[in-house]
Amino acid sequence: MDDVIFFQNKNIHINKLFPKIKFKKKILIRGVKPLNEATKHDLTFLDSSKYLSNASKTKALFCITTENLANKLPERIEKIIVNNVLLKLAEVINKIYPKADIDYPDLSLNKPNKKKFKSVKFGNNVLVGKNIKIGKNTIIGSNTIIENNVKIGKNCIFGSNIVLKNSIIGDGVVLQDNCKVGQKGFGFIPFKNKNIKFPHIGKVIIGDLVEIASGCTIDRGSVDNTVIGKNTYLDNQVHIAHNVKIGTNCMIAGQVGFAGSSQIGNNVSIGGQAGISGHLKIGNNVRIGGGSGVVKDIPDNQIVMGYPASSLKEFLKNQKK
Amino acid sequence: MDDVIFFQNKNIHINKLFPKIKFKKKILIRGVKPLNEATKHDLTFLDSSKYLSNASKTKALFCITTENLANKLPERIEKIIVNNVLLKLAEVINKIYPKADIDYPDLSLNKPNKKKFKSVKFGNNVLVGKNIKIGKNTIIGSNTIIENNVKIGKNCIFGSNIVLKNSIIGDGVVLQDNCKVGQKGFGFIPFKNKNIKFPHIGKVIIGDLVEIASGCTIDRGSVDNTVIGKNTYLDNQVHIAHNVKIGTNCMIAGQVGFAGSSQIGNNVSIGGQAGISGHLKIGNNVRIGGGSGVVKDIPDNQIVMGYPASSLKEFLKNQKK
Amino acid sequence: MDDVIFFQNKNIHINKLFPKIKFKKKILIRGVKPLNEATKHDLTFLDSSKYLSNASKTKALFCITTENLANKLPERIEKIIVNNVLLKLAEVINKIYPKADIDYPDLSLNKPNKKKFKSVKFGNNVLVGKNIKIGKNTIIGSNTIIENNVKIGKNCIFGSNIVLKNSIIGDGVVLQDNCKVGQKGFGFIPFKNKNIKFPHIGKVIIGDLVEIASGCTIDRGSVDNTVIGKNTYLDNQVHIAHNVKIGTNCMIAGQVGFAGSSQIGNNVSIGGQAGISGHLKIGNNVRIGGGSGVVKDIPDNQIVMGYPASSLKEFLKNQKK
Repeated sequence: MDDVIFFQNKNIHINKLFPKIKFKKKILIRGVKPLNEATKHDLTFLDSSKYLSNASKTKALFCITTENLANKLPERIEKIIVNNVLLKLAEVINKIYPKADIDYPDLSLNKPNKKKFKSVKFGNNVLVGKNIKIGKNTIIGSNTIIENNVKIGKNCIFGSNIVLKNSIIGDGVVLQDNCKVGQKGFGFIPFKNKNIKFPHIGKVIIGDLVEIASGCTIDRGSVDNTVIGKNTYLDNQVHIAHNVKIGTNCMIAGQVGFAGSSQIGNNVSIGGQAGISGHLKIGNNVRIGGGSGVVKDIPDNQIVMGYPASSLKEFLKNQKK
Repeated sequence: MDDVIFFQNKNIHINKLFPKIKFKKKILIRGVKPLNEATKHDLTFLDSSKYLSNASKTKALFCITTENLANKLPERIEKIIVNNVLLKLAEVINKIYPKADIDYPDLSLNKPNKKKFKSVKFGNNVLVGKNIKIGKNTIIGSNTIIENNVKIGKNCIFGSNIVLKNSIIGDGVVLQDNCKVGQKGFGFIPFKNKNIKFPHIGKVIIGDLVEIASGCTIDRGSVDNTVIGKNTYLDNQVHIAHNVKIGTNCMIAGQVGFAGSSQIGNNVSIGGQAGISGHLKIGNNVRIGGGSGVVKDIPDNQIVMGYPASSLKEFLKNQKK
Repeated sequence: MDDVIFFQNKNIHINKLFPKIKFKKKILIRGVKPLNEATKHDLTFLDSSKYLSNASKTKALFCITTENLANKLPERIEKIIVNNVLLKLAEVINKIYPKADIDYPDLSLNKPNKKKFKSVKFGNNVLVGKNIKIGKNTIIGSNTIIENNVKIGKNCIFGSNIVLKNSIIGDGVVLQDNCKVGQKGFGFIPFKNKNIKFPHIGKVIIGDLVEIASGCTIDRGSVDNTVIGKNTYLDNQVHIAHNVKIGTNCMIAGQVGFAGSSQIGNNVSIGGQAGISGHLKIGNNVRIGGGSGVVKDIPDNQIVMGYPASSLKEFLKNQKK
């Protein structure tokens, strides 16, 4: 199911993307992917040493990076060296995937064709885009919008006023009223007093049996995907930014917020209004107290609390002072 | 007005619910209610000593509880002793009230019958379920959905894109755009790496003259009800979990969150982004500073602030260190 | 573009508004404006010494104020001295601008007239009020509501399920799904165990190239306006209260909340879930860490963090203790 194409790509020759660079290999670039997902037809990028471990295994032949990071990449990869990796990346993605920089609303929406979706039940005024798939026995509430190419599993129960785009949804998923899933995340590059919009070409992948309560916002991935693992439950008004990956069996209480690109393990529980900073790695079986502000990685099996979040023991010690 | 039935119940004999237990009394169980609301036809439950004060007065004849709590219940009550009260309770509620475990969208919605609601003004595309009541001179904005059995008082002003279910709304209530009221709360039981959905059979009761701003989410009660007292005002994006009871004349600023089952007194003011943990009791005339995290009960007339919230005096003392 | 009238005013003679006061000048009052925007036909008010600097330059001839503040106002201004400025102000505004105390939904909505908006693209079920303006090449997503008198610039991209009222939107603005802009803010006066609704007659003004993500709520001004400067970006679920003024090129991350009447400079970046108290002045180029609670003014070029927010240096020092 993971092979849906939400953003149509143009094949562009590597020489045309970077006319000033003399490459050894001369191929058509078909897409942009993170290091660990790129094929030899994709362009990739490295903008932080945090992701170096993915570099040795990448299949990509071309990588946008900085002078400092370039020498840490395998020799076989041809480097495109720039000062600002994300700025160059945005420029290239805009060429390969036009229209990913802004959430243009789907203007091809229609009432669902009842013949096509025989075993699906729809409320009133549901609107669906082209080429969508919905599994058996799924129920979709009134005024909900499902934009083009979205895939939804069987036995799902969706409420009203939902907007769903650029997403692949598993079986038995429950979405309550007003969830917004798959929209463009908060990605842009501050540059000379102007914000350059960073196009987002990823998707949202939601596992089986996930339950998401009212008013959550789940942004699609920028280059990577946003993923919510099987059997994870989200309470009302949770905000999940681009590229966040949440494991299985997690429990995320109301108004929790995740900044971009953090990875959360399995069986993690997070109390209400906690915030998780970007690019962190939270282990399995971690428990994060309500209202905490997590600003660094947390290993498996920890209980943390506070702002910035520390181990429960330390938090209680500080309280006693 | 409080006798509306949102979740149809099946009458089931106590012996059929618990075939392995030999009861003295043999009656039909008609419903599940908290200790203080149960009649002799209802099954009740006790899962925490916090609620023991309600036990002596209960009219229920049967109570699900643990071995430890059983001997604190009046002798006249027949005890159903289990390891996990909520797990057994979920199982029983699912039998008596099927379809309360998930928010199945109301598929019986229609345009409002103008003859039935002569003195009500509707915007465009309003959808209403069966058996709803709306008082005189109430105005309902466009795209708003009112699901079956909901009762709304007179002189209410509702905005657009609201979804209302399992709720009883007083007179003169203002709901701004996009409020979601009466949906299932965040209730489930983590069990053997699977989340068991806890069915929610309560409702939301909103008093007269309450004002609720845009984008708030107010979950219905699980077994009990969620209640907002007369003349209380809520700002944008407030999250109120199941069973929360807020008194009269309160002022709740933007993005405040309440975890489940907390009770808030009258004339309480809560600053923006504050969080109130679950199962707490906040007194009358309490003032809670913006951004505070309240994790324990607060007596009447206190001013508190901080995370975890302490008295203002203590908070300021800690700041000076 | 700033001269749109969202709340129809009645001209009322100053003697009729305050029959017990003997004024020297006798004129028709046409409106209520803050000190710095009032003309000689407007009534103005001063309720805090914080705004005294605007008093010397005001063109207003009449000002509601307290005994203490009255003698700080220029002699040429006739003072209306009261105990509770806001209470009296609410009473007067209700007379001059009826219907600003509650968000009455626009019941004059219709499908957009395709002839009138030739170069605008609309999704399905878009509803528009009377007298709205939409610039060339703007795209409006499905189920979006644009209430009467709203002005929208050219080249804007709006998502679905948006509700827009009492607003003036610049060119090239992006609004993602579910934004609610221009609704009445959280304004009322607690008075003898009753909340007096404070009417809000201001608007929301959004500059060119602003981008606002899903589920944000932006309240209109009370007497003044709410303003978001050119090229500022807001992430999901941000809450902006009445009268807040945000400068240009700012970056506001997810779930940030602004209480009423604060002023934010240019090039300010604010991390996720931070909260900004009311009536503050945040300078240019300020950086506020995620989760911070800002309770006092911040001068230009500062980096702050914590609750209450202090300079980064101080915050780190406290962490080490």
